[in-house]
Amino acid sequence: MSLDFATFMDRLRELLPGDDRLLEQPSALTAFQSDGLTAFAVHPRAIAIPATSQDVIEIVKLCHEFNVPFVARGSGTSLSGGSLPHADGIVIALNRLDRILRIDLPGRIAVVQPGVINSKLTQAVASSGLHYAPDPSSQQVCTIGGNVAFNSGGAHCLKYGMTSNHVLAMKMVLADGSVIDVGTEGGEGIGPDLCGLMVGSEGLLGIAIEVTVKLMPKPESFHTVLAGYKSLTTAGEAVARIIASGLLPAALEIMDVLSMRSASAAVGAKYPSNVEAVLIVELDGTAEAVAAEKIKLSELIAASGASEVWVARDADERATIWKGRKSVFSAVGRLSPDFIVQDGVVPRGKLGHALEEIQRLSREANIAVANVFHAGDGNLHPLIMFDGREEGALIRAEHLAAKIVQLCIDLGGSITGEHGVGMEKRQFLSGMFSEDSIQAMHCLRRACDPLEIANRGKMFPSAEAPALSLYGAHPLETAGIASRM
Amino acid sequence: MSLDFATFMDRLRELLPGDDRLLEQPSALTAFQSDGLTAFAVHPRAIAIPATSQDVIEIVKLCHEFNVPFVARGSGTSLSGGSLPHADGIVIALNRLDRILRIDLPGRIAVVQPGVINSKLTQAVASSGLHYAPDPSSQQVCTIGGNVAFNSGGAHCLKYGMTSNHVLAMKMVLADGSVIDVGTEGGEGIGPDLCGLMVGSEGLLGIAIEVTVKLMPKPESFHTVLAGYKSLTTAGEAVARIIASGLLPAALEIMDVLSMRSASAAVGAKYPSNVEAVLIVELDGTAEAVAAEKIKLSELIAASGASEVWVARDADERATIWKGRKSVFSAVGRLSPDFIVQDGVVPRGKLGHALEEIQRLSREANIAVANVFHAGDGNLHPLIMFDGREEGALIRAEHLAAKIVQLCIDLGGSITGEHGVGMEKRQFLSGMFSEDSIQAMHCLRRACDPLEIANRGKMFPSAEAPALSLYGAHPLETAGIASRM
Repeated sequence: MSLDFATFMDRLRELLPGDDRLLEQPSALTAFQSDGLTAFAVHPRAIAIPATSQDVIEIVKLCHEFNVPFVARGSGTSLSGGSLPHADGIVIALNRLDRILRIDLPGRIAVVQPGVINSKLTQAVASSGLHYAPDPSSQQVCTIGGNVAFNSGGAHCLKYGMTSNHVLAMKMVLADGSVIDVGTEGGEGIGPDLCGLMVGSEGLLGIAIEVTVKLMPKPESFHTVLAGYKSLTTAGEAVARIIASGLLPAALEIMDVLSMRSASAAVGAKYPSNVEAVLIVELDGTAEAVAAEKIKLSELIAASGASEVWVARDADERATIWKGRKSVFSAVGRLSPDFIVQDGVVPRGKLGHALEEIQRLSREANIAVANVFHAGDGNLHPLIMFDGREEGALIRAEHLAAKIVQLCIDLGGSITGEHGVGMEKRQFLSGMFSEDSIQAMHCLRRACDPLEIANRGKMFPSAEAPALSLYGAHPLETAGIASRM
Repeated sequence: MSLDFATFMDRLRELLPGDDRLLEQPSALTAFQSDGLTAFAVHPRAIAIPATSQDVIEIVKLCHEFNVPFVARGSGTSLSGGSLPHADGIVIALNRLDRILRIDLPGRIAVVQPGVINSKLTQAVASSGLHYAPDPSSQQVCTIGGNVAFNSGGAHCLKYGMTSNHVLAMKMVLADGSVIDVGTEGGEGIGPDLCGLMVGSEGLLGIAIEVTVKLMPKPESFHTVLAGYKSLTTAGEAVARIIASGLLPAALEIMDVLSMRSASAAVGAKYPSNVEAVLIVELDGTAEAVAAEKIKLSELIAASGASEVWVARDADERATIWKGRKSVFSAVGRLSPDFIVQDGVVPRGKLGHALEEIQRLSREANIAVANVFHAGDGNLHPLIMFDGREEGALIRAEHLAAKIVQLCIDLGGSITGEHGVGMEKRQFLSGMFSEDSIQAMHCLRRACDPLEIANRGKMFPSAEAPALSLYGAHPLETAGIASRM
């Protein structure tokens, strides 16, 4: 430990007195060593746990003064390694900044601290008929700060948009310690959209300490249909048919047979038998509009070759359908000791082709892949299953994951739909953007963070730590830290 | 003229040979001296007229090499002086870059050059049942490049969002001459949302040379209602009632009696007599949804105290209503020799109060103000009428405009809803943002434009040229250039 770092730690201890605000014991560090992408694990030097916005500001200033990298972290549900610690830095755990600071019901906005759990905000305003629309599958545990960092989506972002469509304004600490306000409560733009720039910036520009979000009226009425298909391709074609009709469902999701099996095993969800895929379609809106649109939808589904169609008859049945869908990521653990959740996008028109290719790659590699995806957006989530105890299994799974990412690039899609680049896909960034474009991102990053201490080593291609498919011998594992879930 | 500038011009002449690609005659400069904010007028040194993207890149590189400021310009319809020339720089007129490069109907995207006229894109895809949704009132003449620079809205942005919600990706020349790609065709975010940062950046970061936009299905059905009210306040309350009901109309506009009078004079639009305000509400969507929602809307309007209600019976009647509404800005010219279009936002709940205050300020200053606004968004467009031939009339009008802007700030709104900061409202930026926030914007700007040559002097508060309400003696006028429309 350099003298400088020792001084830094002394100053940090002064800033965060008491024994539960600065953690340095190995057991504590282990608790923070990974996020949702458990293939990577790194011990940071310490975990700083601020209790107030001012604490966050002071910690960031100190990091800037001593050139110590930091990683801001909410619940650590990132699936791309976005909140993986830095070995020479600290983690700033924002969970205690969990207050809803203001709710303005007539204005339909809420101001929250970054550590507020996504679903808690909706609970807080439920009695007023409002809700916070972005609904990542992890919404029971993930924080709004994390949603902001990765511009999280969710099943209903087809109609309602991603996190960026719901964040109006933020107070942020930039990595140099300056505190800025971006955006406006009314949502109107004034000059460059700094709020938009910050949402999705993966923690590389600074830390949001207050987030002003839109609250939306809960739809008056829902109509949720689960339709079974004999093939993934037919289910994909049904999606194209629905979109082409002009209907804009709130959600359009597909699960394949392996996903159904995991959801059944985990939460007892039921699905039609003898089908290869189910399509979940949800309409929402005023009672009148839903009543009218569901007639159209039922004609479309009838014509789409569905072999079985279930309609949720009440709120409980609707909840059961969604519980099954949202449990898939965690539920796959029942079928396979380990898995990688991949996140890629293909143009909607190439969905069928992409699914066939993924099946081909899966057979070729002899690795099972479950498919669950936001079909309306062309956002795929292949779940690549493996057993990390088998020699080389992780590497093989990652090679397959990399091929799927490359497939998305080749089809004119994207390397990420909603999980971010993080640690996992840094080397693929240059598959999406030219050198000049990446250079421009770098320049903007340095404008906010001249020392590049905020989430150092993430998002940009770098030799510092290898990414998916390229880290071969898995050097992080050699540090003696288990990579198992 | 410095030797350096002479060399710059020589190089520019080489780059743009022929006699119609580089204009230097005073008559040509006069044609470009103002934009929609005619109170300002400045002769640039020259007008460069590129024919290709490569021309734009080369011109920008040259400007960077010689530190010559440039202003990119489409049709010059900016209402905030955003495309006002710089006296020591050149204008880059993008009108010849007016090609639609690609239309992908199944993918529902179009790639256009920046000089494409907004409404031309919709015309080009009309037969496929698609349209480009953002519809600024000037859509018959304004360019998509200009819409991008100012993140233009329009009557239908209540439901469909601003330009930023419809731009998926862009190819841009940054002010240092580097060419970057931002965004993705699928619209998914990868890292910081550079595309979002660029849209609305008022030409301070670079020039878009290719813009990829969403095409949306034209709504199957419309229902357009014009309701007359005895007072602006009652009309404002009707808006609150409609929004609170959960309906999301495509448009919710209010026009006051002066606006109606101008629209009648200009395009023969008809309005109910003996009313102080009309509310225009448009529902759109599938035939089924509109049929259902219009019942709800008619109940709401019946309960809102409307004294007269007209429903458009066919597409022609609908077109007539919109023609009247969209003509107001230009039509006010029939009632007043000069006017300033103001653009501010107040929280929707404070709309009634804001309108009363504007009327009070108007009486106090003895200056007529017509009000037309996107009521659903709280976006006000007071039209401040004056006769520029009267000594001091412009200054008085600007003082009133400034008071209205300040009112918007005081009510927790915004200094601009869709017209931008431009030249007009630079001094008000610090009413919205802290010094640190403005500093962060500066840093980001310098990351893309180290010499600050792209639209130099705009948006940021500056002593270089004064803004609305502060330019007292109107120094630009002393250059001998008329400020009249």
